[in-house]
Amino acid sequence: MGESPLAAGSLSAALVQLNADYARAIDDDRLEDWPDFFTESCLYTITSADNHRQGLPLGVVYADGKAMVRDRVTALRRANIYERQTYRHVVGLPAILGETEAGLRTETPFLVVRIMRDGRMDLFATGRYVDLLLEEAGALRFRERLVVCDSNRIDTLLAIPL
Amino acid sequence: MGESPLAAGSLSAALVQLNADYARAIDDDRLEDWPDFFTESCLYTITSADNHRQGLPLGVVYADGKAMVRDRVTALRRANIYERQTYRHVVGLPAILGETEAGLRTETPFLVVRIMRDGRMDLFATGRYVDLLLEEAGALRFRERLVVCDSNRIDTLLAIPL
Amino acid sequence: MGESPLAAGSLSAALVQLNADYARAIDDDRLEDWPDFFTESCLYTITSADNHRQGLPLGVVYADGKAMVRDRVTALRRANIYERQTYRHVVGLPAILGETEAGLRTETPFLVVRIMRDGRMDLFATGRYVDLLLEEAGALRFRERLVVCDSNRIDTLLAIPL
Repeated sequence: MGESPLAAGSLSAALVQLNADYARAIDDDRLEDWPDFFTESCLYTITSADNHRQGLPLGVVYADGKAMVRDRVTALRRANIYERQTYRHVVGLPAILGETEAGLRTETPFLVVRIMRDGRMDLFATGRYVDLLLEEAGALRFRERLVVCDSNRIDTLLAIPL
Repeated sequence: MGESPLAAGSLSAALVQLNADYARAIDDDRLEDWPDFFTESCLYTITSADNHRQGLPLGVVYADGKAMVRDRVTALRRANIYERQTYRHVVGLPAILGETEAGLRTETPFLVVRIMRDGRMDLFATGRYVDLLLEEAGALRFRERLVVCDSNRIDTLLAIPL
Repeated sequence: MGESPLAAGSLSAALVQLNADYARAIDDDRLEDWPDFFTESCLYTITSADNHRQGLPLGVVYADGKAMVRDRVTALRRANIYERQTYRHVVGLPAILGETEAGLRTETPFLVVRIMRDGRMDLFATGRYVDLLLEEAGALRFRERLVVCDSNRIDTLLAIPL
């Protein structure tokens, strides 16, 4: 990775595709596809920049392992008795931080807009994905995806994955 | 396409360049360059996510063939008697969905900010481009670009292409 | 550059990485790393689209040479006696305009969200980076980065680099 131009172009392309597919699954309301972006043993959290900086392990959302990620989808489907708002992820350019034995470290900024049923739009969240990636069956998967929101005011009723 | 890392990196780069160039032509007010992003036989529509989901064919904007795309530019130039607002497209990461005989299917999210003459900015539109791409004379062109807006409240006086 | 698919994919990847790293250095408050994205002889300005169109050379921020870029960081650190707001750059897709003897011309749109201490978020700035890039010690660096803001209402007390 990074040794040759070929690898650089190809890895960059794979990162773009992974992040684009992930956001699309959520925004298209295909939540059942969402767990498949993670490895079996995985960590998914939503936390604030302040908490992340202080090393606090727990976020407002916490899933340890793919089964817990799937449980979250089930819970969201059950809870969603009201007509949904929709969301639009605009994911920025991914940065490759480096590769260790644990996997590939990357960070990617995001912005999410919420669209109300009456057509109003507002900025819902901004932040960055702090990721640890592994290759599994020829595809990049998240071993860790820490969703670090810039604002401390995270809606604890967060209806959707970020 | 997609068979080798080389092709993956190169195609991803071409998609990034196409989407960046398209947005730049509009935001720079070079509308006369805009039709050249399409193939001679093409479809360009602006519609809402609700309409798109229900398979309604007509959007608030509809152009069937490059000549109609050009007509739209002429109409916009004639109508634009007031000092323009400006717009900023922020295009997210393109996702490659697959290739068929008809061409290459991709989807790309977008966000458009409107900037008023007095400096105020607001979120104007979010959504996704649902594209069918063909290679023509060595460059990627839109056979179809369906602009699917997240909000149902689409300004029918839309001053600019999205 | 651009002659082979290999070069295209690799250059695109390098541009994505450069822009992602640049934004991350600012948003992570690692301002001391920011000058290293520039070549020794360089130009960094923040200006408005109107001023840029009229060819006015001076922006609200102007740094001619890496030493002035460093000075700006020192000034910012000294001035920053109040608890900072934070910012989130969402950088769009980079467009490659061409290569001359002077370097590589690219343009990249951006959007910056400001996050207040109480959690409120607002659109702070949108615009485009008009860049001239050189390769230095194997890495792309900015010979020129003209930050062209869409709005004329640029905060002259701009707390952060854009």
